[in-house]
Amino acid sequence: MITLYGTTVSIDEMTVVLDWMGIIVFATTGALVASRKEMDVVGFALLATVTGVGGGTLRDLLLGLTPVFWVANPTYLIVCLCVACFLFFTAHIPASRLRLLLWLDGIGLAIFAVTGAERALAADVAPVVAVAMGTITATFGGIIRDILGGRNTHHTQSRGLRYSSSLSGRHVRWIHSLRSCTRNCHRERVCCRSRNT
Amino acid sequence: MITLYGTTVSIDEMTVVLDWMGIIVFATTGALVASRKEMDVVGFALLATVTGVGGGTLRDLLLGLTPVFWVANPTYLIVCLCVACFLFFTAHIPASRLRLLLWLDGIGLAIFAVTGAERALAADVAPVVAVAMGTITATFGGIIRDILGGRNTHHTQSRGLRYSSSLSGRHVRWIHSLRSCTRNCHRERVCCRSRNT
Amino acid sequence: MITLYGTTVSIDEMTVVLDWMGIIVFATTGALVASRKEMDVVGFALLATVTGVGGGTLRDLLLGLTPVFWVANPTYLIVCLCVACFLFFTAHIPASRLRLLLWLDGIGLAIFAVTGAERALAADVAPVVAVAMGTITATFGGIIRDILGGRNTHHTQSRGLRYSSSLSGRHVRWIHSLRSCTRNCHRERVCCRSRNT
Repeated sequence: MITLYGTTVSIDEMTVVLDWMGIIVFATTGALVASRKEMDVVGFALLATVTGVGGGTLRDLLLGLTPVFWVANPTYLIVCLCVACFLFFTAHIPASRLRLLLWLDGIGLAIFAVTGAERALAADVAPVVAVAMGTITATFGGIIRDILGGRNTHHTQSRGLRYSSSLSGRHVRWIHSLRSCTRNCHRERVCCRSRNT
Repeated sequence: MITLYGTTVSIDEMTVVLDWMGIIVFATTGALVASRKEMDVVGFALLATVTGVGGGTLRDLLLGLTPVFWVANPTYLIVCLCVACFLFFTAHIPASRLRLLLWLDGIGLAIFAVTGAERALAADVAPVVAVAMGTITATFGGIIRDILGGRNTHHTQSRGLRYSSSLSGRHVRWIHSLRSCTRNCHRERVCCRSRNT
Repeated sequence: MITLYGTTVSIDEMTVVLDWMGIIVFATTGALVASRKEMDVVGFALLATVTGVGGGTLRDLLLGLTPVFWVANPTYLIVCLCVACFLFFTAHIPASRLRLLLWLDGIGLAIFAVTGAERALAADVAPVVAVAMGTITATFGGIIRDILGGRNTHHTQSRGLRYSSSLSGRHVRWIHSLRSCTRNCHRERVCCRSRNT
């Protein structure tokens, strides 16, 4: 439980909200790349969907959580397609699509590094695997987007890898300290109770 | 049940027959690309197999139907290898390999868009996911073939995506109307029976 | 059971030892490619890990053995990262990194072709699928390494495919003859016993 602006939210609820934000942000970057390449609406739909759900799909496949999340819950697909349609008509409006793209890419990376690691921890894997999963979730969607969109992004991806792995690492360490803290509190309470009785 | 030229076939039987046809057609296109690139027999075998079973493999992985179909039933692999061997000796005969390739690609796309969506519906997923699966089954084999064969097919693939997604969509809508029709018939019959008794 | 230099080892034990050797050798080739491309330490870690565990990951996904081996046992990841760190400081020492790379690639290919086929046979698949799995395990890590490292290795990979598939084929044939031999011995012994009693 985390108290945020006076309301208490569980980590699970926060993960779900962040996950949706990450998917929308990444779907937007995919559609922006499609717009920069002047693709048709099918290209927008493809790139938005692949970028939005690509990283999470690979994570679910590797963790053995099949059917993958967007097959179990098709709302993810529909949201990505809506983002693609919306961007198809509005992508030409921002003054610099590249700057918007880089900003959104960074935001999506930060969100997915945390939620990817969180999902892996929820599946009871070792910390180092959780860090790897956070990194994969955050970077893989962007890598496929750049391969399909024909962008050369060796440089960007390397920086993305570095940031997302460090973020996932911090998150895993934080969750671990939170958990051991909870466990200690629990143990103390049990001790106190047994002492009192 | 569908009545075709006087004989009654179930949808499952038709799916199996169409699936085999699709695999043979796509394996042929893979071997034709290998022939155009003047590869050796290993290249033929690789491209024919990857193109023939690639789309279905990704579909099975995403749906969680593991082990994937060609691991469970190795006949698929053997057929792809036979097609590769056959084409290795005969691929130079047709006057225009490129025209044959484009025709077969279109036929394979149409077949796999339908059978892919059908298999997804058989695994009880939402209609929009079934459309996505039909599209993936139809286009993914060709995308890998073009990456491995070094063909630049941005244009073709985009058209392939458009056709296969619309075909899958129509098939899913048709199956849905068929099902709801069957359900209504069944309900009416039950009503009649309950009224009669 | 195989008797080797006077000590008896089971095929399972040999597979585990060979698998570790293959992963270390392939992680080294990944790090060497990163070194040739003058990447930073993140690039070393990425290429070493992907090359070391990539082929086995695809094999496990296709066979439906999820979570994949390095998620279940994170020691694999840690070893790959250690190899990457070690190579980051020592990769400039050998006189010719390319020659070392080609040698190690060949050794890794030979090891993984055998252990990949062995693992597939242990999962009770048909012989032709086991050969395909050996080939996939041996070549896929190298293919991803070359795509991410930007190396053009059409030629090398085709040769790798040919060698690894022939090696897997031989191994599967050998294991099959070993098994049928064991079965015959067992049958004979049972016959003898039933004759004696």
